Amino acid sequence: MNRLITFEGVDGCGKSTQLALAAKALKSQGEKVVTTFEPGDTPMGKKIRKLLLSGKYVPVPEAELLLFLADRAQHVCEVIQPALASGAWVLCDRYSDSTLAYQLAARKLGSRTVNIREMLTFAECRVAPAMTLWFDLPVDVAAERMKKRMAAGEKSTRLDDEALSFHQRVSAAFASQFEADASRIVRIDASHDIEAVRIQVETALNSRFSIFS
Amino acid sequence: MNRLITFEGVDGCGKSTQLALAAKALKSQGEKVVTTFEPGDTPMGKKIRKLLLSGKYVPVPEAELLLFLADRAQHVCEVIQPALASGAWVLCDRYSDSTLAYQLAARKLGSRTVNIREMLTFAECRVAPAMTLWFDLPVDVAAERMKKRMAAGEKSTRLDDEALSFHQRVSAAFASQFEADASRIVRIDASHDIEAVRIQVETALNSRFSIFS
Repeated sequence: MNRLITFEGVDGCGKSTQLALAAKALKSQGEKVVTTFEPGDTPMGKKIRKLLLSGKYVPVPEAELLLFLADRAQHVCEVIQPALASGAWVLCDRYSDSTLAYQLAARKLGSRTVNIREMLTFAECRVAPAMTLWFDLPVDVAAERMKKRMAAGEKSTRLDDEALSFHQRVSAAFASQFEADASRIVRIDASHDIEAVRIQVETALNSRFSIFS
Repeated sequence: MNRLITFEGVDGCGKSTQLALAAKALKSQGEKVVTTFEPGDTPMGKKIRKLLLSGKYVPVPEAELLLFLADRAQHVCEVIQPALASGAWVLCDRYSDSTLAYQLAARKLGSRTVNIREMLTFAECRVAPAMTLWFDLPVDVAAERMKKRMAAGEKSTRLDDEALSFHQRVSAAFASQFEADASRIVRIDASHDIEAVRIQVETALNSRFSIFS
């Protein structure tokens, strides 16, 4: 059974917090769980993440897309596939939907020479998510949350530093991906407090997998 | 006018030596020339080259392909396009034909989900070579030359260290790319000495561009 669950949304939407809570809840049911993230959760991926996000380099849009995909292919083969094969749940913070939202939509990276969605499928190495939780939060609310996190000492990435219009395109892209693939993507209203969002996540997981009594 | 000339062939075929000689010959005619190579001739590319070739990491075939393409996209936009726009000749040591030979053919990286040749075109960012010189040399002769270079202190790369059968597939792929695209690719018999090969290169360039008197 495919137990890859991806957590998607704009920065500040609370997906990483909820991913940790979902992992805890699954483990409390005796389930084996691997938590992971993109980009950068392999030794090679760590280096790719630095090229993408440190701000030291400015990859052109085509190179940016290709680096995210290279990170993903390595991540799938080195981490996700083996974990799934061992019977674990894999909870992954960002996956192909982020690439569609950030690189394809927000960067406006169309191409006359190749179908970029097919490139995304290629990089997934035959591992598509069983379910995707989309943490929907208005961009201005997310921006406020991010400001607080930065004020508390978190470092922003090169993508965090993009203009508001960029993040609005990201947000709109997530919304249209949800509309186009509502059988896989579940919308979570991320504007509520942590506990209320946690309950939504648990309900979503339960409705598909019946794991929580 | 497109003045991108790519130099292709197996390691040990003499392409880098001939590239330097061709640059010298063009400059002696008063031409502006930029010499470059793949992978790794941008600041970001240097880091990607390390991921690909140092042997410290072993990218899966999909990630290997995507990293070569990321390096290329950055290289085209940062180095090749500006040089061509300034009216320079660009002589490039390896380009898309190497990716086809090494990653697609030798790694046997077929895909049911995407046309990989279209991905290569995407990474070229609309800059295709005006002419490609393919330095054809039997794999065993090339291997002997490489042995001598290693004995003289040159470090082998992760791809150099692949089995003979891998290099045979690379070589066969170059041959079939030549057959499929003989209007762009010129075959140079690289089994002769440096001077005899240099004359072939000059003749090839002259037949297309009429630059040498």
